[in-house]
Amino acid sequence: MKLYEALAEKLTLQINNGYFQPGDKLPSIRQMSKTHEVSISTVQEAYRLLEDRQIAEVRIKSGYYVMSSSTVAPKLLNISRPDPTPVNISQWEAIVGLLYSHEDHHTLALGKGTPHVSGSTIQPLFKLISRFSRNQHVNQLTYDSLQGSETLRREIAGMMTHSACQLHHDEIVTTTGCQEALSCSMRAVTQTDDVIAIESPSFYGTMQIIQALGLKALEIPTHPETGISLEALEMALEQWPIKALLITPTCNNPLGYVMPDDHKERLIALANHHDFAIIEDDIYGDLAYANPRPRSVKSYDTEGRVLYCSSFSKTVSPAFRTGWCAPGRYIEKFKHMKYVSTACGSVLQPRAIAEFVAKGHYNRHIKTMRAQYLRNRDMLIELVTQHFPENIRMSYPQGGYLLWISLDESIDTSDLNKQLAIHGFSIAPGSVFTAAKKFNHCLRLNYAQEITPAVRNAIKILGQVIHASVGHPTEND
Amino acid sequence: MKLYEALAEKLTLQINNGYFQPGDKLPSIRQMSKTHEVSISTVQEAYRLLEDRQIAEVRIKSGYYVMSSSTVAPKLLNISRPDPTPVNISQWEAIVGLLYSHEDHHTLALGKGTPHVSGSTIQPLFKLISRFSRNQHVNQLTYDSLQGSETLRREIAGMMTHSACQLHHDEIVTTTGCQEALSCSMRAVTQTDDVIAIESPSFYGTMQIIQALGLKALEIPTHPETGISLEALEMALEQWPIKALLITPTCNNPLGYVMPDDHKERLIALANHHDFAIIEDDIYGDLAYANPRPRSVKSYDTEGRVLYCSSFSKTVSPAFRTGWCAPGRYIEKFKHMKYVSTACGSVLQPRAIAEFVAKGHYNRHIKTMRAQYLRNRDMLIELVTQHFPENIRMSYPQGGYLLWISLDESIDTSDLNKQLAIHGFSIAPGSVFTAAKKFNHCLRLNYAQEITPAVRNAIKILGQVIHASVGHPTEND
Repeated sequence: MKLYEALAEKLTLQINNGYFQPGDKLPSIRQMSKTHEVSISTVQEAYRLLEDRQIAEVRIKSGYYVMSSSTVAPKLLNISRPDPTPVNISQWEAIVGLLYSHEDHHTLALGKGTPHVSGSTIQPLFKLISRFSRNQHVNQLTYDSLQGSETLRREIAGMMTHSACQLHHDEIVTTTGCQEALSCSMRAVTQTDDVIAIESPSFYGTMQIIQALGLKALEIPTHPETGISLEALEMALEQWPIKALLITPTCNNPLGYVMPDDHKERLIALANHHDFAIIEDDIYGDLAYANPRPRSVKSYDTEGRVLYCSSFSKTVSPAFRTGWCAPGRYIEKFKHMKYVSTACGSVLQPRAIAEFVAKGHYNRHIKTMRAQYLRNRDMLIELVTQHFPENIRMSYPQGGYLLWISLDESIDTSDLNKQLAIHGFSIAPGSVFTAAKKFNHCLRLNYAQEITPAVRNAIKILGQVIHASVGHPTEND
Repeated sequence: MKLYEALAEKLTLQINNGYFQPGDKLPSIRQMSKTHEVSISTVQEAYRLLEDRQIAEVRIKSGYYVMSSSTVAPKLLNISRPDPTPVNISQWEAIVGLLYSHEDHHTLALGKGTPHVSGSTIQPLFKLISRFSRNQHVNQLTYDSLQGSETLRREIAGMMTHSACQLHHDEIVTTTGCQEALSCSMRAVTQTDDVIAIESPSFYGTMQIIQALGLKALEIPTHPETGISLEALEMALEQWPIKALLITPTCNNPLGYVMPDDHKERLIALANHHDFAIIEDDIYGDLAYANPRPRSVKSYDTEGRVLYCSSFSKTVSPAFRTGWCAPGRYIEKFKHMKYVSTACGSVLQPRAIAEFVAKGHYNRHIKTMRAQYLRNRDMLIELVTQHFPENIRMSYPQGGYLLWISLDESIDTSDLNKQLAIHGFSIAPGSVFTAAKKFNHCLRLNYAQEITPAVRNAIKILGQVIHASVGHPTEND
């Protein structure tokens, strides 16, 4: 993301937040230049971008104004207000339903978490796999080492410098996808009945790990721009014996925010003071629209408290199940849990991925993907703005490819899905992203895939169904 | 294995067992033909094989006699006598040491569990992977389904008919190696502090799962030819609240026995009567020397109590991490545990393996491997007989590629490993195969690899070190 684009993003956020109201005059170009310490031309380009996006309009001899609300995107979400006590998680049946709907190739699954995987920049990886398969050596066909391919771990250590992490490759353990990294991390730092703090909403996959391990989840109020409220976390820490905090602070799933650097730093101070572990899910981190990408929480960690989890599933393809963890001080326990879980990973594909990174293909690929996802985000927001009721609120993702929308509280998005099935598509209902029943009226959309006419039409129908549902709760309610 | 080979095997076992003593006359050819319901020529060929192997000798006009003990293989192991109470498992440090020694490419790891992976019959698989990589389609690069590739599951269902299992492919779930199948099986049927019955000795990898899940292990006396004592199991069932039984009944690791069919059938009756689950590890089952391969316990299961676990790791290569489970009545819980563990498997390699099976390459490959392992077994037993003290006892594997040897009780094989390190090789010490301290004087050897001059020399040195150690316990004792 260029400087003027970043400035335009910031202004859009302030407009969506209500800081600037429709019809308000935006600060003068000179004033903006001074406040944000950027050149006059950068501000000019930022304003021109807002004009292109129909967020601001220029009035001759007067300046830039926020456009009337009919063309401005819906308001940003409010901070979440989850239940203030740790709860057990269930909902496996709902997740199974969701997973099966994603597997159904006849359904356009608008809510799933899959990235775009058919771009040309991923092609070199297939050539590499093909080459490694042809030229395999005997010693490559045995069990991988417990810690995983050293070649790949060296490349991962290099990649992680982009989020300001300086790690030795021996501090990294490869895993079968990010799910194994998260699962083993939780098993490394908790025991049955322990309390683990999470964001609200939270990714349903990690919540299922919490459930299976018999942990209790405490949802922390979460701001749609800055992530979990550190104040609320601090209060919770004084009230409950919190063993670990599980967060996706960079390009959050489902909210898309990036926790600011100073929050990340303060979070580490809190962990040191209150003696808890942080499980950082950074799976979408490399897809942040900002360049250079935001720092990770791990990069502030001096005491080895952060178990940093990631994977190539969102950046390259989920089909390879190549993830990793930098488990800090918990590395020995983590390796034990990995041994117990799958013993070791596969051999061939991690080597091909290592080469894909080493040759610069990975950086080229994610650069392309970031640009595509940013374009798609704006297109999807425009479509939603056009077709959905005015009173919705939504996230304003700073990376990744997931949009979170909050509808009128009378609507249950699980019920909505039953109606959408007739039209051949589905969304991810909000109910699976929480242990409480706070997000039944919310939904997650994916904008990784191209916004084809079929997608445009689906969003239009979705809007119609939502319009028809407002104030008409189904019998289940 | 042909009929005459099977007969020769049976006689060798009886000789090793002491049923026929050195110098004893073996039954006449006519008598044998009648007893075993085989043709005269089959008995003749079997006796000729025993002669070739220097187990029996022919005396003119008299018949066949067991050769003098100097050339007969060591005696078979006794039945194990583990502690009669459930215990906690620890030993992770010892396992880590073992795994690291296996990863060290400068060490000849004679004790590891790796199959032979450089044969020509495995080559078609690499061509298939290479082809699938080149011709990949977009919809193959996303998350695999939770249950795993249907194409592969259909092939697996077909393979399992060889062990007399008639399953629908929807009763099968693919996993990341057999370890994930075993781990998810245990999580599906037990809770913390539950008692699980196991063989004695048992594979250390599954014992670590027991440890990580906080279960208690009850070792059941195990016969080196027929597996766990059903009588002892029945007594234990009356005494302890056993939730599940974990066994490797076909080509056991480390003992190599095949549990007889009638034992397998009785075991199912016991499970039905006492209401417990059976986790059957059949990872070596397709490597049984008998043809057709022995039935699985699962094939007798009418109530869905058996969670059948297997993988291509021992038959094809461990590098692909492609395993599966047929979890019976526990399938929904099993899928949940798989989702929590790794969410799903990789996409490309399972498809290539499915094609490898479908095209008949798999059957050709394991036929070749079985013959090689059988040859290697006899060569290794001959080497051990030649170089080890006379008072050792050992297993007589009926499949797979693992040999278990029991030395003089004064020897600690973990200490032995320290001495062997100087010579650049290692064995798997008996201590890691039990929660009790019953097998400190035992060791496991692998005969999957070719018996090269380097291996011959290592066995010779191993024999010398053992000779020198007898009656000279180290200071640690």
